[in-house]
Amino acid sequence: MQEITTVVLDAMGGDHAPGEMVKGAIDAVNMRDDIKVILVGQEDVIKEEIGKYQYPEDKIGIVHAEEVIETAEPPVNAIRKKKNSSIVVGMNMVKNKEADAFVSAGSSGAILVGGQVIVGRIRGIERPPLAPIIPTESGVSLLIDCGANVDARPSHLVQFAKMGSIYMEHVVGIKNPRVAIVNIGAEEDKGNALVKETFPLLKACTDINFVGSIEAREIPHGGADVIVCEAFVGNVILKLYEGLSSTLISLVKQGMMSSVTSKIGAAMALPALKKTLKEFDASKYGGAPLLGLNGLVVKTHGSAKAMEVTNSIIQCVTFKNEDINGKIKKNIIVSEEKTEA
Amino acid sequence: MQEITTVVLDAMGGDHAPGEMVKGAIDAVNMRDDIKVILVGQEDVIKEEIGKYQYPEDKIGIVHAEEVIETAEPPVNAIRKKKNSSIVVGMNMVKNKEADAFVSAGSSGAILVGGQVIVGRIRGIERPPLAPIIPTESGVSLLIDCGANVDARPSHLVQFAKMGSIYMEHVVGIKNPRVAIVNIGAEEDKGNALVKETFPLLKACTDINFVGSIEAREIPHGGADVIVCEAFVGNVILKLYEGLSSTLISLVKQGMMSSVTSKIGAAMALPALKKTLKEFDASKYGGAPLLGLNGLVVKTHGSAKAMEVTNSIIQCVTFKNEDINGKIKKNIIVSEEKTEA
Repeated sequence: MQEITTVVLDAMGGDHAPGEMVKGAIDAVNMRDDIKVILVGQEDVIKEEIGKYQYPEDKIGIVHAEEVIETAEPPVNAIRKKKNSSIVVGMNMVKNKEADAFVSAGSSGAILVGGQVIVGRIRGIERPPLAPIIPTESGVSLLIDCGANVDARPSHLVQFAKMGSIYMEHVVGIKNPRVAIVNIGAEEDKGNALVKETFPLLKACTDINFVGSIEAREIPHGGADVIVCEAFVGNVILKLYEGLSSTLISLVKQGMMSSVTSKIGAAMALPALKKTLKEFDASKYGGAPLLGLNGLVVKTHGSAKAMEVTNSIIQCVTFKNEDINGKIKKNIIVSEEKTEA
Repeated sequence: MQEITTVVLDAMGGDHAPGEMVKGAIDAVNMRDDIKVILVGQEDVIKEEIGKYQYPEDKIGIVHAEEVIETAEPPVNAIRKKKNSSIVVGMNMVKNKEADAFVSAGSSGAILVGGQVIVGRIRGIERPPLAPIIPTESGVSLLIDCGANVDARPSHLVQFAKMGSIYMEHVVGIKNPRVAIVNIGAEEDKGNALVKETFPLLKACTDINFVGSIEAREIPHGGADVIVCEAFVGNVILKLYEGLSSTLISLVKQGMMSSVTSKIGAAMALPALKKTLKEFDASKYGGAPLLGLNGLVVKTHGSAKAMEVTNSIIQCVTFKNEDINGKIKKNIIVSEEKTEA
């Protein structure tokens, strides 16, 4: 018998909740029969949305959660005080093994804090990194860490490299992924104190395919599969990716609309252009996993629509079926023991 | 009588040296009569290039320098050993007040090291930042620091903010420029240790228009005029800007060439599109100044062509005429004395 993956979905988080969240869940269970989705949030709101669709009833559940954590709320406080929020209720279900994964488009801060304090870290994992997939010219790369772990230490970055490598190989399907550390030059002696200390540690890892430093210029060209950095730098890369892509695409549109001739040209070129630019859209790869937890927590974009939600749910199935947490435990614990020996 | 600005130009540095360097110099002196350019490098090579042009002979000089520092050379070593290189000879001329500024498209590392050890810092300046201009949707911003000062301290960032503000106002011409610090959230309590310590110091500065944190996403949208960060982050932003722009533009071209219809459309839209994208090209603003030195050192792109060289030379005239170093000295020394009092 096929094993079922149970995913708790935060029906209340994100710019397009609950509509797109519910639609994403319905699409996922209609697409595959190895998924059960539990929608967590205000029951009446969810029921109204869900009434619009046809779906296998045993594959959708609802768990009521009265409160909603807003994006602007201080996360630590919100997680502590709002015990009946969709995020806290959903994460507790993962903690209590009632579900395999929790997916949310809600407050990043609350998801990061909740992941650590409610779901909890795998023993031996120092810090759980947030690892979004970013598009490149030749495919995608995993950017690890973009989370809240600022002022990281070298040992954290080494764990990020290992976990990212496992995820990229077994969830995304890149064999022997190239791991690189973000640096300001290609040479080994370049970098800040953190990178200089981390570089030889990564070089000494026999269980990853470490290819050295990567300059930010090479990231969009697909220079590595797993891009290791501390969270402040990762956040800058991720946000700049978003901001610059939208600026350039709006400039392209603006340019093509600036004369009558170019407007006609634009109308002819646009369908092909859109297709290409769609390839440069990370949402089809789902959300960003928070790795190293006793379970799985996935953060999707605040602007996520149904497709990204569906893909994030499917990503949880692969995560479970490939036993990523088992692989992380084995790898990290074996490595740590070796180091201590 | 009009005052002449004397700029030493490294004729040997950059991908297109000496041809484009010499052309840039000739264009500058033909365009304006308040500029003298001294070309430093291998005399016979320069003379051969220069022979191709008409120009006012008293406005171009040549100083022979036998050696060339290659991009791959370790910079500290190169500056120490190659006393007869174009970079060392040129910088010594600025140090000895034989010239107002030195412009080079050569080795970034050697230029940063040479600026500090040959030209030397203004008294009171802790670290000279490299401050390139980056294009945005609404104009340009100054990104300060992108240099070699990794692991900066809060006091460095405060000086960067002040120097950047002076440069942006008096050289680029933005009145009361908005100064922001790169951060991973808009709130004051967000950030790593460096940003958290620097934020209140910037907030307390009465001589700059500090507007708070800027997330990387807002940089391309023109969210601030002076973008303050430490060099590692600045380098990531600068390089990612370059890499992502080239990736997206190549994707746009690729997309438009993918069908017969779109090809015809592309041919019609391209001239207008090129014009818009040209606006998003930083080279017309010249090179990146290394601020806080006893003189001026400007680093242009390694790929710089004549136009960027000419603009970099003209930028030196504004720098001198506006007495930027005088303003920096006054501002920094006054602020430091206030702090100590």
